[in-house]
Amino acid sequence: MIEYAKQALKGDQRAGARLIRLLEEQNPEGTKGLEYLFPHSGKAAVIGITGPPGAGKSTIIEKLITEYRQKKLKVGVIAVDPSSPNSGGAILGDRLRMRNHADDPGVFIRSIATRGYQGGLSRAVFGTMIVLDAMGYDPIIIETVGIGQDEVEIDQIAHTTAVISIPGMGDHIQAMKAGILEIGDIFVMNKSDHPNADMAMNHLNTMLQSKNIPEDEWKPLLIQTVGKENKGITELIRGFDSHREHLMNNHRFDEISTRRSLYFFKRLITDHVTEKTLQFILTNPKYITLTDSLKQFKTDPFSAAKKMTENLKYSLKS
Amino acid sequence: MIEYAKQALKGDQRAGARLIRLLEEQNPEGTKGLEYLFPHSGKAAVIGITGPPGAGKSTIIEKLITEYRQKKLKVGVIAVDPSSPNSGGAILGDRLRMRNHADDPGVFIRSIATRGYQGGLSRAVFGTMIVLDAMGYDPIIIETVGIGQDEVEIDQIAHTTAVISIPGMGDHIQAMKAGILEIGDIFVMNKSDHPNADMAMNHLNTMLQSKNIPEDEWKPLLIQTVGKENKGITELIRGFDSHREHLMNNHRFDEISTRRSLYFFKRLITDHVTEKTLQFILTNPKYITLTDSLKQFKTDPFSAAKKMTENLKYSLKS
Repeated sequence: MIEYAKQALKGDQRAGARLIRLLEEQNPEGTKGLEYLFPHSGKAAVIGITGPPGAGKSTIIEKLITEYRQKKLKVGVIAVDPSSPNSGGAILGDRLRMRNHADDPGVFIRSIATRGYQGGLSRAVFGTMIVLDAMGYDPIIIETVGIGQDEVEIDQIAHTTAVISIPGMGDHIQAMKAGILEIGDIFVMNKSDHPNADMAMNHLNTMLQSKNIPEDEWKPLLIQTVGKENKGITELIRGFDSHREHLMNNHRFDEISTRRSLYFFKRLITDHVTEKTLQFILTNPKYITLTDSLKQFKTDPFSAAKKMTENLKYSLKS
Repeated sequence: MIEYAKQALKGDQRAGARLIRLLEEQNPEGTKGLEYLFPHSGKAAVIGITGPPGAGKSTIIEKLITEYRQKKLKVGVIAVDPSSPNSGGAILGDRLRMRNHADDPGVFIRSIATRGYQGGLSRAVFGTMIVLDAMGYDPIIIETVGIGQDEVEIDQIAHTTAVISIPGMGDHIQAMKAGILEIGDIFVMNKSDHPNADMAMNHLNTMLQSKNIPEDEWKPLLIQTVGKENKGITELIRGFDSHREHLMNNHRFDEISTRRSLYFFKRLITDHVTEKTLQFILTNPKYITLTDSLKQFKTDPFSAAKKMTENLKYSLKS
């Protein structure tokens, strides 16, 4: 609703939260509100924080919030929360811990459960980002578990991506070789008071050194933290700031915002057209035999999908 | 390639593996091979095993394989492996442990990394299932981390879904209320030699009891295991068998196979049409202004996606 959008712009958290809910429910009023807010967005730095369960992401975010608040910055947090049954331990508890800031209008925490979205997760995450951005929350921290099956790919969304790791995750480090080096702008070794921390740091450092980075590009930072003791948080924020500065100096900041916008646009298009296309195909008289054969387990889905899409033509209603 | 498909049907593991690779690469020869194999599939029981990292899924699967082999059954395992950087600890190690069976032609283990698939994961998983099924592997065990962001939804695919849990996961149990009760046919409390095991069992039991299950429907089983000590594995297999029998008696077994086939068909259609639709839309002269405005961050993606899809019309090339 435009009314909610207007109130949100004035800083009304509750109106913002209501607007976000309308968006999640795919209520057309939500889209209208978003249209209204969109021109006011695009200013916030989006910081992605990703890492395996148990790495201490939520504790670090908690400390980041506190320090950003001391600097009088308004902080938004979007926690993409694998709230499914099988998510494992700490998540609900972590969420609660962040509630410390529940009464502070300078902090807007939104936990988005992944379960049940089935393709609509992007809508919820992006909608929330625009609302928070327009409301003046900056930075906006987005937390994902990032196990590689994420519907929302953090490196496509964030200006700055921080990868949290902890000592003793040998396999994790191994796996890092596979791709994490590509997405991290900042690597955080949390729980760096752990006996194996030095070894883990050396490993990570060696890997980062082995990357061939052109002179004018960003060199990933490696930062040690002990989240629970608030150690390294100031350095981490300094890291975020200097990466933002780097993006600004290279005219990359707005470029990333636009890329994100296009990324979500593509996701939204997919959501829109999938059902429509399926309906067209599955009810098309030409395909009745093929559909039946598929339903009777006589035709394999690969061939059926190929046959049914290769002659598909698009046009626009005039 | 048909040749690979023919050899796979004769039991040649290597030919099967090659065919699977062709499918993953979206090589049209792979689809041909699959078409050839499809009529031979549909017999295997597909068992989904899901649970959080650290619950002991891989150890249990390892023991299941051993016991199924003693019964002279051919076992297929598809491990959907969150091989991304951020996957956390044990996964690579677990995979290796299963390699014990690498030289046994009665065991076909395929680990499918989720990273980099971006929508093509379904293709790989389903293709592999058909190949293994046609080759006579039965049961086919599919392992997922299942944190709710899975691209492949285990309860849409498996005949029988087992949810592995361990004592001391208070939040996990809490989260279970949210939806896991719906998808589990069998609940496994692993590490049941743990001091808190009885309490955890009671919790789970109470929740299961509170479910209102009609007389003729399956009542979820609750089974205790200690994977490392091979305890409860026989009971678990008995559970799988009795659930399969239940499905057979109620003519549900083939129904589920067909549902799975349709599920993957829809996924494949989505893969096919998304790019096609985007290309049509983004190059359509009518939308040049809108596309530019989107690229310049002037129009919000929600409105753009809506406008661009609401007039979309489908037809078939004659």
